[in-house]
Amino acid sequence: MIDLLKSAVQRVGGLDQESMRACRLRQDGLTKPIGSLGVLEDIAVRIAGITGDPRPAPGRKTVLVMAADHGVVSEGVSLYPPDVTAQMVMNFLSGGAAINVLAGHAGANVVVVDIGVASTLEHANLVSRKVRPGTADMAAGPAMAADEAVGAVEVGIEVALGVIRGGSQYLAVGDMGIGNTTAASAITACMTGLDPLEVTGRGTGVDDGTLEHKVEVIRRALEINRPDPGNPLDVLSKVGGLEIAGIAGAIIACAAERRPVLLDGFISSTGALIAAGLCPRSVDFMIASHLSVEKGHRAVLDELGLHPVIHANMRLGEGTGAALAFLIVDASLKLLREMATFEDAGVSGPAGEGE
Amino acid sequence: MIDLLKSAVQRVGGLDQESMRACRLRQDGLTKPIGSLGVLEDIAVRIAGITGDPRPAPGRKTVLVMAADHGVVSEGVSLYPPDVTAQMVMNFLSGGAAINVLAGHAGANVVVVDIGVASTLEHANLVSRKVRPGTADMAAGPAMAADEAVGAVEVGIEVALGVIRGGSQYLAVGDMGIGNTTAASAITACMTGLDPLEVTGRGTGVDDGTLEHKVEVIRRALEINRPDPGNPLDVLSKVGGLEIAGIAGAIIACAAERRPVLLDGFISSTGALIAAGLCPRSVDFMIASHLSVEKGHRAVLDELGLHPVIHANMRLGEGTGAALAFLIVDASLKLLREMATFEDAGVSGPAGEGE
Repeated sequence: MIDLLKSAVQRVGGLDQESMRACRLRQDGLTKPIGSLGVLEDIAVRIAGITGDPRPAPGRKTVLVMAADHGVVSEGVSLYPPDVTAQMVMNFLSGGAAINVLAGHAGANVVVVDIGVASTLEHANLVSRKVRPGTADMAAGPAMAADEAVGAVEVGIEVALGVIRGGSQYLAVGDMGIGNTTAASAITACMTGLDPLEVTGRGTGVDDGTLEHKVEVIRRALEINRPDPGNPLDVLSKVGGLEIAGIAGAIIACAAERRPVLLDGFISSTGALIAAGLCPRSVDFMIASHLSVEKGHRAVLDELGLHPVIHANMRLGEGTGAALAFLIVDASLKLLREMATFEDAGVSGPAGEGE
Repeated sequence: MIDLLKSAVQRVGGLDQESMRACRLRQDGLTKPIGSLGVLEDIAVRIAGITGDPRPAPGRKTVLVMAADHGVVSEGVSLYPPDVTAQMVMNFLSGGAAINVLAGHAGANVVVVDIGVASTLEHANLVSRKVRPGTADMAAGPAMAADEAVGAVEVGIEVALGVIRGGSQYLAVGDMGIGNTTAASAITACMTGLDPLEVTGRGTGVDDGTLEHKVEVIRRALEINRPDPGNPLDVLSKVGGLEIAGIAGAIIACAAERRPVLLDGFISSTGALIAAGLCPRSVDFMIASHLSVEKGHRAVLDELGLHPVIHANMRLGEGTGAALAFLIVDASLKLLREMATFEDAGVSGPAGEGE
């Protein structure tokens, strides 16, 4: 572990319990039965703990989309040709993708990072931080070298720190990479101990035969590489992806800077699993957004102890579920800040309590 | 059934299949794997079928909050005193309640209807359409007379028609009424055939003893009144509530006028169950928003065949979950209208398909 990652991990502290208590106390005085806003109350309380502000406000939001290619596509695990990664990056930059629409809807901006796209991409708004032009085929050997995995995590840290310095207070992490559900399933199987069959889904929509083959490819990758479940960087380099590494780094940077970070779907959440392995305290800074139909997602969220609010059968990635969840986060903060208290509104509390 | 209700029910037609097909065709050409936006695609397709517009746009939104009191509170089934209904109505009108914050967040306005609050209320912005000052105790006899139940349904129809004539294109139905989870559980038990124990929850947060008593009160109400499950107006008058009747009417009006209507939680959804009984085709015009922690909610949504997107452990009512879901509906329509197609963006389709 080199310096940037090490120092970021060391800076990650615990939640501010005092701010959380003060926030919960205010919640309990608002004109509603105690706890009746459920997760909307919990999110505000957690953000109080993250930011140290008992009455946190909505703020500037950014979706970081990490894009990279996967050598394992040569094994025939995806429905789409690998060129689509680069094509979709250009689509993000011209504003035509789902993430652009949903980020716009939520008042967030989109930062697109080429952390490992196979082809050469140039665009004024692209953050070009290519660690290598796609991973190698993990079914034939390690996806990348150990120092490349660390390098990609550190790119994620640096990019997130830049966005935070630029004024973003709420971040979300999304992905683009044809083939990346194969890497995510391999990471999940390795780190949760579940069988690949239990955590491998259809990705962009492969048929039964391809799904069976995909599981077999993942088994082979795990057998050939023997990643150490206790060493997240080993897992990342052997069966991971560059965008997954970048996402892990971005999450750790958010935790170090005490900014809430919204996870998206399966890929984004395996990045979170890596981050949690490198820095267990970073989990406190994560907010789950949606539950993907991609098979392994629930297992990853269970492992992290997180509960997604949106159940919409989405399976697109890009940060789309997280962008939608920015609207839920803003709702929770506005409720905390704008609702009247029982006292303000002259509303009686529960019968038998003094009023 | 008198004229207004009868004519509204007769005007309810089916979904426009041609618009739905055209909408789905467009969805499939957008730059994402087919179906990968899940429920966000389904919502847009359904709205196409409702409105007859294959590319429907976001529009003006209103949350209708129906408020009424319940005689059954004299049985000691609620944590809060009945005065809270009137106090919360005033809170809605001064903008301090959760529904005000969430409707504002979603760009919706709030229309508050006194359809049966026990006390006399006056406010310039209150829609005063009191059918009677609260129901009678359903554990001792019918909650209201048969003509009062029809009258309350028709108030819901008239108010919704007024809001639609005023320019609202998307409606949501919410409730306020101390004691109304008792009525909603009685309706649900009667109309689904489930035991009261299975569909009765803690409402505003009663303890185990009160919960047990609440179930017993519901059993008594069903035994004394013997509502006919095949006759929604009979159920409504014997064990229902005035706000639940108003919600049922508003839903039927939305269906008649081909406007999407968002359900909220348990109370709102039992109103939908009544509407479905009176007019089975109205179900096509309903959109589920959230899954409440209130025990009977899932049974009601299952009965209606609806799937809520937001799972946030909310249990407040007022239309709060529906207001949040307006943001999901707008997201689904913006995606349909604003995303680039594969052709526009020069992105390849699935491998093996002609570009």
